[in-house]
Parts: sequence; structure tokens; C-alpha cells
Amino acid sequence: MFIADLETPAIVVDLDVMERNISRMAEYCRSHNLRLRPHTKSHKIPELAKRQLDQSANGITVAKIGEAEVMLEAGITDMLIAYPIVGTGKAEKLADLATRADVSVSLDSVAVAEAISEAAKKRDARVGILVEMDVGFHRCGVTNEEEVLAVARAVADLPGLEFKGLMFFPGHLQVPEKERAELRAGVNDFLGASLAKLEDAGLRVDVVSGGSTPTAREGHLFTGVNEIRPGMYIFNDRNMVSVGVASIEDCALSVITTVVSTSVPGRAIVDAGSKTLSSDTHQVTAGKGFGMVKNDPDAEVERLSEEHGNLNIARSPRAYRVGERLEIIPNHVCTTVNMHNRIYGVRGERVETVWEVSGRGKVQ
Amino acid sequence: MFIADLETPAIVVDLDVMERNISRMAEYCRSHNLRLRPHTKSHKIPELAKRQLDQSANGITVAKIGEAEVMLEAGITDMLIAYPIVGTGKAEKLADLATRADVSVSLDSVAVAEAISEAAKKRDARVGILVEMDVGFHRCGVTNEEEVLAVARAVADLPGLEFKGLMFFPGHLQVPEKERAELRAGVNDFLGASLAKLEDAGLRVDVVSGGSTPTAREGHLFTGVNEIRPGMYIFNDRNMVSVGVASIEDCALSVITTVVSTSVPGRAIVDAGSKTLSSDTHQVTAGKGFGMVKNDPDAEVERLSEEHGNLNIARSPRAYRVGERLEIIPNHVCTTVNMHNRIYGVRGERVETVWEVSGRGKVQ
Repeated sequence: MFIADLETPAIVVDLDVMERNISRMAEYCRSHNLRLRPHTKSHKIPELAKRQLDQSANGITVAKIGEAEVMLEAGITDMLIAYPIVGTGKAEKLADLATRADVSVSLDSVAVAEAISEAAKKRDARVGILVEMDVGFHRCGVTNEEEVLAVARAVADLPGLEFKGLMFFPGHLQVPEKERAELRAGVNDFLGASLAKLEDAGLRVDVVSGGSTPTAREGHLFTGVNEIRPGMYIFNDRNMVSVGVASIEDCALSVITTVVSTSVPGRAIVDAGSKTLSSDTHQVTAGKGFGMVKNDPDAEVERLSEEHGNLNIARSPRAYRVGERLEIIPNHVCTTVNMHNRIYGVRGERVETVWEVSGRGKVQ
Repeated sequence: MFIADLETPAIVVDLDVMERNISRMAEYCRSHNLRLRPHTKSHKIPELAKRQLDQSANGITVAKIGEAEVMLEAGITDMLIAYPIVGTGKAEKLADLATRADVSVSLDSVAVAEAISEAAKKRDARVGILVEMDVGFHRCGVTNEEEVLAVARAVADLPGLEFKGLMFFPGHLQVPEKERAELRAGVNDFLGASLAKLEDAGLRVDVVSGGSTPTAREGHLFTGVNEIRPGMYIFNDRNMVSVGVASIEDCALSVITTVVSTSVPGRAIVDAGSKTLSSDTHQVTAGKGFGMVKNDPDAEVERLSEEHGNLNIARSPRAYRVGERLEIIPNHVCTTVNMHNRIYGVRGERVETVWEVSGRGKVQ
């Protein structure tokens, strides 16, 4: 089968580019002696997680228990659930998982730790715990080194839990390089102070788990970091190009779409809307555009309806005709893949593989 | 089972409210002698389409052939696919459908009509055609009455096709009532001119298919309109409340979510992010907020990560604690439902029904 045989909209992944992305990140980690724990939320496909593990990743990251279960079924047994597990049902599922795999979770409160401990104790399971720090993104995470120590101490004392170290998500560093470097100093101050506190208290820190794709290759510049959790790097996207951590040639994933209408002057309407690309805005150019039309930088994916991509082609030098196909690089691959039940691996014009996005749509 | 037993995030639909929404729209259409063809993209659930048909809807609207197939399997045989069907494979599937159901599609070009005619001819099928008009939203649709006539004439002459009438989507009227009334005049001018042209040409117009939920109950104010295609009205959402066509009490659908972190001052983090709510922005208040927290108007769903809803609670008078559950009314129900594999129908605190979102994730 060839790309031209696929009905649109369809997600295709250039296997050569993807394989290069996987190898490069593995190589970077090897050369800096960092553990690599790719975040599989970007694809939710066990076969791709395995390709990452084959290239010297040390384990994977997932966002949900349901995703962890899908990965475990496929034989992957070293997982970090980088999300606070809250609720009795979820804590019990987590403890079940921990009897069958090497599972850690992140959390930022003693209450969450206690509930997990309760469930783990009942099953004689052992759940690894990373204390999450808020290094500036202001989402989850304790906000100072006193709290780091307080939660870590409580975890170390609770049965069924093993305090493993620290985790942070530097989401506010998804900006161009110069700004990243400035913001990194603040992150390092907090990391240094926390590690000193833990050392003083005699708490052993095995893992300091750091950045996602935008800061992945700067992992060695963060104080104490010995593991990174990039997700998007496997495919890359328009956001990653904009913050300068990937080039367009590094974007493995695109959406193949068909022009369905050119009736309105200055517009081309394609069959990829928000239910195909997701409504995630561009994080750099003040939210402008919902993707990048390959080979026509002058076409803007200006608006999305659910099934219509509304391209402003007023500034484009070329004509668009109904029935022709375009390739769009999405703003954010993670939410785009999440819209689809299957995606296609291609080499040249040939479709080599079909993957089911089997971790998609999990509630918990 | 009770709502409290559901793992979060979960979509619940208050059945009493939904049933009232369905009845009211049916009653409005009866009283104004309008045909009702609900757009089922808002739920993609055959059982709900049937409930709408039971309440005197005349048929349904879908966005894709795949959705039409799911509805046909459930026994629904009168469908409008309100989308230009482009591509040989799709035209053939459409013609197949037309041999088994009463199917119409909208289009705005002779090229699309010719391809469908070709496929229909081969199967001895008959596909109803509505010519789509761009009444101001600037997406699909011909832009003047001369083009309306040209496409309608071509359709009337092509084998396998039946020219049935006109369709428009007044998306630019998703604004408060006063602005809607002003914009309606322009729509009516175009409708009047087109209907006169078609009459002069001796082309019979059976259907003039108009607005979606924001203008649904103004259907009788549009020139010549004898059918409406509202979708969101079955559930309603924050956008519909903001344009004044629903009250909060009319919002049947909400997302049940759990607070997973309150570590960062002024913030509560919940387990409903963009992969649960969708990233669709609020269409009225300059995109502010990704949903409405029920019972706390001072909490703002300020940012979404994939699995984290980041609530700004700095202005809220109440405290939030990890483990408690909140209800969020989404900005846009259609894209929220599309994130889920199943949703729950509830009455009071009791879960009465589980529906599979079986039309979700269709490629074509």
C-alpha cells in the first residue's frame, strides 16, 4: 500500500526520520551518562515504546494507569507514571501493577502518598515514589526545599513505598534557547537546595528526573539530573521547530489531508479539523495557525472547525484545487495522535506499518 | 452504580435535562413547521440519535461517511452528510450507502458532484444533493446566487444525483442575540436571491437547511428555511450559555474530575486536561477559560496540559482539597465527547446508562 491509497485524513510517520530521532536522543543520553525514560503519551503505541527501549532507553514514562496496563500487556515492565494517582480505585490498580512490574509514580503531597501506601501494603507491593517539584510551570509540585524534604521523609517512612528521588516538568522552558538558559538558573537553584536538604537528612536520591523534549538535550546542564523524559522528540512538531530543538526535516509526523472546497476566495478547506489535528494552539507565535502546510509557508491553517481545516491562502503564490492532497505538520503531536485510532508508518511513498494507538482513550 | 463510583475523568449526562432539551427543540420545530435534522456529531451515539428521532426529528445529520455507517447499522436510514465528499474511495462508499439508505450530501462545486455522480451511476444509486452556500462564515459554500444556480443546474443534469435544495452553516452567528439579528439580514438577502434564481430556472427546491444550535430557535426567521440541523442543543455547553441560547440549568453534560494537587498556591490541579475537555477555547470571552467549574464561578480553568486542568483559584472564596471531585461544564461539548470512548447517562446520583461513542474516531 502507498500513501496515495490512504483515505484522508490520515497520520503518517516517516520511519527514516523517526528512527533518526530515536537514535539521536539515545546517543545524546549515552554521551552524557543520562538515563532515558521516553514519555509514551506522545504515541501511546507499545511497538514504538519498544523501539525506544531497543535504542537504550531505560524504561518508559506514561501519564495514566490505563496506559501503563497497555504497555505492561506488551511486555514492558519498567514504568514511571508521571502523574499523582488519586482515588481509592486508582491506588488499588496501581498497587496491582506494582506486583507485576517495576512501577514508580510522582506525587507532591503526603495525602496521596498515604493512600498509595495503604493500597500497596494490602498487596505486599512496593511502589517507587518521586517527589514532584514545581520548578516554575506552576502546575503540580512542591514549591520549596522544606516541602521536598517533608514529603520525601513521609514517603520514606510509609510501608509499601520506596522514596526514589525527585521529578520536575520544566514546562515554562518551552521557549527559545536564550530564554531557556535564563530560566534554567532558577530551576538549578531549587534542585541544588533540595538535594542538599535530602543529603543532610540522610535520604538517598537515586533518580532526579528532568525535562521533556524542549530541554531534553540540555539535560546535563540541570543540577543533579540523571534521567530525562522527553516524549515529542520521537516525532517532533511545529512547536518543537519554533523553539529551535528540531528542524522541519526532523518532523517525522504529518497529517495527510484533502482539499474539499475552494469556493470561498482566498480559502482552501481541507478535511483535517480539530477532531483530526486537535485545537492546540501554536505556543510561540501567539497562537497563530493550527499547523504548518508542508511546501507552502504562505498558507496559514487559520481556523479549525471540527472536520474542516480553514486555510487562508490569500498570500500563497500557488493555486489550490479540490481533490489535491496536502501534508500538515501539527502544532502538537501528542494531542494530534490522540485523535486517531491508528497511524501509519511510511518509508518513501510506501506504507510499511499500521499501528493501533492502543493506549488512547483510557479513563484512568 | 452511582456517579461517585465512576473513575475520573468521566463524562456524565443528566438525562432529565437532556430529555427536556430534546423535547423543547422538537416542540419548537413542530410549532414553526420546520423539519428537524439533528447533527449527531455532537454525540456520535446511535441510541441518542434514536431518542431524537423518537421526538419527531425527521432524520439525522452526520459529518462523515463512517458516522453514517454506524448510524445505518443501528437502523437509521434518513441521513444528510453535511460535508463535501471528495475522493474516489469515499464517493464509492457514499454510493454504497445510498443503495441502503436515504442519503443526501452537501457540496459547493461541480467537480465534487461529477465524482459522486460517477460512483452513483455505477451502483444505480441515487444521492440527494444540497448546494452549500457561504452565508458569511467563509468556510465551504458558493458565494453568490449565480454560482448557486450553476451548481444546482449541473447537479440536476447529472445521473445518479437528485438536486434537493440548499444548505448553509451560519457559524458567524454564534454570537449574542443582538449581533445575530444584524447578521441575519445579510443571510436572508442571499437566500432570497438564490431561491428566486432557482425558481426562475424552474428548479424545484424541497429543502432549505439552516442553522445549528445558536440560531436553531430563530430558524423561522430565515428566508425559505424549512429544516434546521442543531447538534449541541441536546447537551448544551459554556459557549451556548454565553451566546444566550441556553442557561446553565440547560447544560446536560459535564465532566466529573478529581483534584490531584493543591501544592502550588492559588492553584488546584484536576485530572481533566486537553485530552479530556479538548483545547477548544471559549468563543465569547476572548478565549478565557477552558470550561466552567460548577458551583464556583470564581475558579478559572486557566490552562490545560494533556492530562492536567490547571485551575486558578486565587479569587475563589473556598478551599480545594486533594481527592475532592468537581464538575466542569466544557466550552464545546462536541469536541469533549469526541475525546471519550464512553459516556454515562445519569439521573440524580444514579448512573442509568453507559453509551459507547461508537461513531468516534472514524477516518472517513
